[in-house]
Amino acid sequence: MLFIGMAFSRPSGRAADAMRAVEFTAGISPYAEGSCLVKFGMTQVLVTASVDDRLPPWLRGHGRGWITAEYGMLPRATHSRMEREASRGKQSGRTQEIQRLIGRSLRAACKLPALGERQIRIDCDVLQADGGTRCAAISGAWVALSQATEKLLRAGDISSQPLTAQIAAISCGVMADTPILDLDYGEDSIAETDANFVLAKSGRIVEIQATAEAAPFSQAQLQAMLELATAATKQLFKLQSQALTAAE
Amino acid sequence: MLFIGMAFSRPSGRAADAMRAVEFTAGISPYAEGSCLVKFGMTQVLVTASVDDRLPPWLRGHGRGWITAEYGMLPRATHSRMEREASRGKQSGRTQEIQRLIGRSLRAACKLPALGERQIRIDCDVLQADGGTRCAAISGAWVALSQATEKLLRAGDISSQPLTAQIAAISCGVMADTPILDLDYGEDSIAETDANFVLAKSGRIVEIQATAEAAPFSQAQLQAMLELATAATKQLFKLQSQALTAAE
Amino acid sequence: MLFIGMAFSRPSGRAADAMRAVEFTAGISPYAEGSCLVKFGMTQVLVTASVDDRLPPWLRGHGRGWITAEYGMLPRATHSRMEREASRGKQSGRTQEIQRLIGRSLRAACKLPALGERQIRIDCDVLQADGGTRCAAISGAWVALSQATEKLLRAGDISSQPLTAQIAAISCGVMADTPILDLDYGEDSIAETDANFVLAKSGRIVEIQATAEAAPFSQAQLQAMLELATAATKQLFKLQSQALTAAE
Amino acid sequence: MLFIGMAFSRPSGRAADAMRAVEFTAGISPYAEGSCLVKFGMTQVLVTASVDDRLPPWLRGHGRGWITAEYGMLPRATHSRMEREASRGKQSGRTQEIQRLIGRSLRAACKLPALGERQIRIDCDVLQADGGTRCAAISGAWVALSQATEKLLRAGDISSQPLTAQIAAISCGVMADTPILDLDYGEDSIAETDANFVLAKSGRIVEIQATAEAAPFSQAQLQAMLELATAATKQLFKLQSQALTAAE
Amino acid sequence: MLFIGMAFSRPSGRAADAMRAVEFTAGISPYAEGSCLVKFGMTQVLVTASVDDRLPPWLRGHGRGWITAEYGMLPRATHSRMEREASRGKQSGRTQEIQRLIGRSLRAACKLPALGERQIRIDCDVLQADGGTRCAAISGAWVALSQATEKLLRAGDISSQPLTAQIAAISCGVMADTPILDLDYGEDSIAETDANFVLAKSGRIVEIQATAEAAPFSQAQLQAMLELATAATKQLFKLQSQALTAAE
Amino acid sequence: MLFIGMAFSRPSGRAADAMRAVEFTAGISPYAEGSCLVKFGMTQVLVTASVDDRLPPWLRGHGRGWITAEYGMLPRATHSRMEREASRGKQSGRTQEIQRLIGRSLRAACKLPALGERQIRIDCDVLQADGGTRCAAISGAWVALSQATEKLLRAGDISSQPLTAQIAAISCGVMADTPILDLDYGEDSIAETDANFVLAKSGRIVEIQATAEAAPFSQAQLQAMLELATAATKQLFKLQSQALTAAE
Repeated sequence: MLFIGMAFSRPSGRAADAMRAVEFTAGISPYAEGSCLVKFGMTQVLVTASVDDRLPPWLRGHGRGWITAEYGMLPRATHSRMEREASRGKQSGRTQEIQRLIGRSLRAACKLPALGERQIRIDCDVLQADGGTRCAAISGAWVALSQATEKLLRAGDISSQPLTAQIAAISCGVMADTPILDLDYGEDSIAETDANFVLAKSGRIVEIQATAEAAPFSQAQLQAMLELATAATKQLFKLQSQALTAAE
Repeated sequence: MLFIGMAFSRPSGRAADAMRAVEFTAGISPYAEGSCLVKFGMTQVLVTASVDDRLPPWLRGHGRGWITAEYGMLPRATHSRMEREASRGKQSGRTQEIQRLIGRSLRAACKLPALGERQIRIDCDVLQADGGTRCAAISGAWVALSQATEKLLRAGDISSQPLTAQIAAISCGVMADTPILDLDYGEDSIAETDANFVLAKSGRIVEIQATAEAAPFSQAQLQAMLELATAATKQLFKLQSQALTAAE
Repeated sequence: MLFIGMAFSRPSGRAADAMRAVEFTAGISPYAEGSCLVKFGMTQVLVTASVDDRLPPWLRGHGRGWITAEYGMLPRATHSRMEREASRGKQSGRTQEIQRLIGRSLRAACKLPALGERQIRIDCDVLQADGGTRCAAISGAWVALSQATEKLLRAGDISSQPLTAQIAAISCGVMADTPILDLDYGEDSIAETDANFVLAKSGRIVEIQATAEAAPFSQAQLQAMLELATAATKQLFKLQSQALTAAE
Repeated sequence: MLFIGMAFSRPSGRAADAMRAVEFTAGISPYAEGSCLVKFGMTQVLVTASVDDRLPPWLRGHGRGWITAEYGMLPRATHSRMEREASRGKQSGRTQEIQRLIGRSLRAACKLPALGERQIRIDCDVLQADGGTRCAAISGAWVALSQATEKLLRAGDISSQPLTAQIAAISCGVMADTPILDLDYGEDSIAETDANFVLAKSGRIVEIQATAEAAPFSQAQLQAMLELATAATKQLFKLQSQALTAAE
Repeated sequence: MLFIGMAFSRPSGRAADAMRAVEFTAGISPYAEGSCLVKFGMTQVLVTASVDDRLPPWLRGHGRGWITAEYGMLPRATHSRMEREASRGKQSGRTQEIQRLIGRSLRAACKLPALGERQIRIDCDVLQADGGTRCAAISGAWVALSQATEKLLRAGDISSQPLTAQIAAISCGVMADTPILDLDYGEDSIAETDANFVLAKSGRIVEIQATAEAAPFSQAQLQAMLELATAATKQLFKLQSQALTAAE
Repeated sequence: MLFIGMAFSRPSGRAADAMRAVEFTAGISPYAEGSCLVKFGMTQVLVTASVDDRLPPWLRGHGRGWITAEYGMLPRATHSRMEREASRGKQSGRTQEIQRLIGRSLRAACKLPALGERQIRIDCDVLQADGGTRCAAISGAWVALSQATEKLLRAGDISSQPLTAQIAAISCGVMADTPILDLDYGEDSIAETDANFVLAKSGRIVEIQATAEAAPFSQAQLQAMLELATAATKQLFKLQSQALTAAE
């Protein structure tokens, strides 16, 4: 580890609790029922929400809807080119893990019966990847999903708002034993611990995934990261709402 | 067919020989060796060129390089969502046909031995699809490829420019027996004939694919479409060059 | 390129406008509703047409039928053995491109509503490959398809002949700057340009695919190839009709 | 079961011990090192033997060669069309079972070290299927393989004949409790027992696969089928040898 | 071959006609409708029978049920680790051959119409593999299947016992020209001939698969192996019945 | 939700902080370098550790080893039969997520350079599933891995123990707003929150995955679950060590 002594500084030069410049642009797609281009620094994710009036067969007849997510990366979203999953013929374990996380988080923020027997499909495509893509995707997905449910509501297709919580996500890490916020790719690859927090506006937790990359971390570090994430998501909730207003 | 009599007008309202607003933005990717965002009206394709210093095993030892292309569409690039090929586990016949066409056209514009034993991989990802995506991809790919070969040249990795021709592509069609230029999605789905022209700046032909969708077409119509394409690509060559200059 | 000066001669020894010996044997399969063994010199393709009274789900309910094609090569149809696609677990891009072309061409020669809600499946299996297999396949497929529609007509399953055009296909190329007809495998691998023409008996065009393998080609060369193809298909139309008569 | 009492007669009208007309045409492929078109009545299988001077990696360095087989059916080889395995993306269990049987039988008839570190790949493609295709394939494969090893011998690539046995195969069955020889498709589908015998000219057994389709069979029936097969293969050995002589 | 002269002894030290210690434990699974853990020496196979009240679509409407089997091996069931088929993405030819054999054998012992339109799915998972796994699987599967049909009978879901025969399987081989019974892995890999016998309690044959690994074998050897198998299965039938009684 | 008022009782009847009967049997496989059969109540997982002296190509040359894990379930490990992944042709997202978690956790407990350039492959196969299979797998995997590294050490293949931490895992949940420990399948399907803790003997955290199934959970609940897990793993560490001692 490179960082010794008192004067710890992040490779990115940011303060331990500093988030990158974040930008949500709602309604960016001319076709989708909801959409959002979300940027966390150099990371850019294009999210669309597509309303599908038919549930897949195994979900029919239960009087409730479904939200599902898919995640992909353009092959050259990254510093060096990655193989195209469509050409490799399968999605990696990482991709599946991320898209399961996105879908699960959104469903936990939604009263599925209020959707009726329809499905909202979230597509998160990473145009540029510089760390934190799954958190950016979740945060942007909530914006796209809001547009889509709002549209259903206005059209009278559903009678009440199915979203029960506003959610956003942010990554944290431990570097040189110090908890830090919103790691970029360079930081992520040398951090000792890597954690993703999906939080609700109420401050409650939707999902935590915290992983020791090098050595196990302490409960105090977990607590410190959770505090960083709580503060950062407050900012994200504000930006999400502004983006939705701007798109109206 | 809706168009009878003298007063034929295209669904798009454009004149038979009118191309949509076209825009090339070179160098849009922070990571790729070459890149271009290309727009033909609502159609948007993000193209990157990635230099790979290793050829695949079966191409090694012949003293020449290779150019290959992959093509993909974001699931909600289209009016209704299409299944993600990575999740379906294979690329459609249409996708493969298009990426083979792109690679073939670029290789026909390049002296492969001048590349050395390296590979340039072109990725064309359709962000929005409103007809003509394969032509937009080829036209943008030439810009991205130019940036990449220029970069190799400047770095001294190659000693002469391998590109031997400037190429661009445009679609034509026959509607109400009238040859028209640059069909959008709505026009494409009702055209009687669908043709794609890849042309070189010299006016020579790199590739023609002309297909009777409804009924066979005449040699005169082929000739008329070729003339429309020749005129349109002249404009495209100019726009490509301007984009490259702007990105320097 | 090997051919310089005035005395250009083709590797095959044929004149520039000479087609190989062509032979159609209709009705060769004891089981299929239509069938044809077609030979262009050493190239041999066995084509069957299978009538399927059920459309695939996504085509039902539109009051029209469908024609689809599949193409395959026996592993040792070629000079050196090629991997079996069934064992590799997927069809190559080339295979898919060819079978899409065959299906498209046949559909353009057919009034699909007259078929009723049924499907005709064309299988083209290359027993020996010496260049021009896709053109042989299309030309033979028209014969097999004719037998199948004729059989439906006689059985009273359909009330009018759905075929609206007689079609045949032939390849051309440019070698030593000279347009030539019906390239065998050895010629094909060194030609500068490779083109396939699917033409109707009326002289109109069903499909053109013309590709610059080495350097772009001129409009005059395109025109010359089209003329070679037009002359050759006249012969093919005659041979197809004779084969059908012989099989009655 | 339909056949009761004394007057049992086979659907095919043949005597219980009568084999269909069998025909081997050796050397039918212009490209393969060995080949044979084999017909058992309406059943037709095209077999090629391809010599490959490289073993797959996991077989290298053991000082011996390998023989492997692949089996396929044209989609309309059968009364009703079967799905193409290349298009379905995998070979059926039946196909794999058959090709494993063919390869195993041929290897049991061969001294693999005498082949040197090379591979002979047998391709058996069924052009028409009317029962007994695996037995026809094995019998024809021996002919193709003989041609290929003979060719290696003449070229001095190997110094002794690696084939140690002449083998052929024939199916038997039990119908109306009567053992019968060489079932066609119609018979096969109603037989109580289905058995395939791969025998060597010495009368010894290379492989037996005997299966009770309806009810278990007796040891006496096994014995009777083995006798039918022994007699029939004597004829097949003669026909194989004649075909090889005719092709010289 | 290592075994010369009079004093032939098996690697396992067993007599030529000695079976390993065999153990059936019926009802081992808390969830399955029928189950059996079967051990032949070090070989251990866990078999479950799952009743599925729905037939797959292509089997519906014929007034009869179906029995199907799947076979798998834990990756480290063997001396050295084998690749997991689920991770490789397909089942090997060997696996498919074995599971087809298991299903076929069980169906031959069952009156399918008496099952009603339901399916029994047999899963055979090899926990430890030391030769003879397919025979152990069949023998154990009959036990699991018996439990499942008995359970259906008691529940009144079917009105008569569909099993028409008790079956068991055992492998034999020829080593040093001597027929031997129940080969373990070490013996199996050096045997000249490898045979599997599926026999019914009546002494009749359900399936024989006998393969010459090195050189063809004689009819006398086939006969001798069949006698060994007949004697051994008598013991197996007794053990199966005891296991079922013990589990009641 | 069924649980109201003061008298909350778990479906299993256990106290909120009560773990099921846990049992580790080390060394259960006769072939693997390390192995453990682990039971948490009705849940049973068979874990093997296989030492592979060759790294996969992309990991070679970095002077360190690797630990990887695979996870599978027997089809009838569960109350109703699940499709076999080997037969479906791919592993589910859930399976991949779990095996990634297992591998990551074990690697975080290991000094990879001390392993040398070799790989240890962990296979976790669920024989019976009644909730908590991933935690049982991790806890058992540590035992199997310990045996394997110990064996390498004794054989002198490595010179120091690469394991740096003893780890174990346990699931927690929130039900009727009450944090509970070690959920069985019935409890898991109705819990509001589902969390898995991988902890080291030092009390530090290796991985946390906590998911709101119904509604977001509070930070206090996270804390309470972490305490339950910390207490439970203390017991698990003791049982793991006893199992290793018993197996020596």
